Amino acid sequence: MEKKEYVTYGQKGQCGCGCGCGSDLPAITGCRFSLSPMTDRFAEIILDAVKATKTDKVWQETGKLSTIYRGRQIHVEDAVKACFIHAWRKDVHMTMEATFSRGCPGDIAGDSFLAEDEVLLNEPAIRNIHFPVACKIALYPMGIPNYMEYIAEVVNHAIDLGIYEKSAHYCTVLSCDVQELFDYIHYVNTYCAEHLSHYIFEVTISVNSPTKEA
Amino acid sequence: MEKKEYVTYGQKGQCGCGCGCGSDLPAITGCRFSLSPMTDRFAEIILDAVKATKTDKVWQETGKLSTIYRGRQIHVEDAVKACFIHAWRKDVHMTMEATFSRGCPGDIAGDSFLAEDEVLLNEPAIRNIHFPVACKIALYPMGIPNYMEYIAEVVNHAIDLGIYEKSAHYCTVLSCDVQELFDYIHYVNTYCAEHLSHYIFEVTISVNSPTKEA
Repeated sequence: MEKKEYVTYGQKGQCGCGCGCGSDLPAITGCRFSLSPMTDRFAEIILDAVKATKTDKVWQETGKLSTIYRGRQIHVEDAVKACFIHAWRKDVHMTMEATFSRGCPGDIAGDSFLAEDEVLLNEPAIRNIHFPVACKIALYPMGIPNYMEYIAEVVNHAIDLGIYEKSAHYCTVLSCDVQELFDYIHYVNTYCAEHLSHYIFEVTISVNSPTKEA
Repeated sequence: MEKKEYVTYGQKGQCGCGCGCGSDLPAITGCRFSLSPMTDRFAEIILDAVKATKTDKVWQETGKLSTIYRGRQIHVEDAVKACFIHAWRKDVHMTMEATFSRGCPGDIAGDSFLAEDEVLLNEPAIRNIHFPVACKIALYPMGIPNYMEYIAEVVNHAIDLGIYEKSAHYCTVLSCDVQELFDYIHYVNTYCAEHLSHYIFEVTISVNSPTKEA
């Protein structure tokens, strides 16, 4: 019988506890995302958006399921925001599913590009574009017993900002302008990088939904 | 100034540790999912699929961002599988983002329906429908330091089943028949219910992608 190549997550850490402590990775933030424009023109819209996004400061890879950007947090956020805004059309219902993450014990130092400077490549072209978005978010702080406290912290910050719509099963619903949403995503990634060794932040954004009800 | 109503996740447990231990919830499995058929006919396809799915054994709610089913694990899985298969069209690129979860400390006993029996309402009509799917999965076992070991366990089971395509940043990619995929989802939910107090299992399924590359 063919010998199978299994994965060994949780068995490589220096402590042997499966937690990944002892890992010595650079500060790589990643975002894996998929755009779903619900129109016959979906391929054209996605390809145009990808092409219009400046990605010189991130590592990127596109597959059949999603695109991934990896690098410094601010540059990853800048590229994801640009790709989403470039894909937006006034009359097309579209969703973007995005998974932001940092600190996975199974992560590798490669497949990344950590630009030295803080000059955002896309922000000047998109900063003044406004449209309403509906969004569901879920934060997963990994490896710690008191994870619910960190989730409460970021949800309460959304309440403070006035972008919180409601709590629902397995997610929190936000409703705001696209600029406010990406400012909030930046806040969450920054807060998590400071307070958590490994987190996943799931964000699904919807625009132009024909469903009016909340 | 208006007094804000904040959330208090992690402050209600009997132990005060924010972990939710001491909670006494029934065995509610939930799945929040969104279908994204990338065609001008998206609304018709989604509504037809929702209507064709028998949901008498789950609690359900549909909003502008997603639909949620809650109840006994097998009945939730049965309804989600049916809704996805009923939305499939031979020539339409579609994704489904689905979040399975159980054991959230912030969960409530309500908004659920725990059917007594094990008779699946949808399976007979869909068991013989076959088409290939591409899928990315991510498992988040919450509140424990050795979470990577549980992730490795379910990934290695996919390897054993021959449905594993590759590991990628922040997810695992599967490639198989739709029936095999939902059998695997059932295995993961069953394994997690037995071994974890709180988990989230994120699944994004794609059919008929025009992108050939993996």
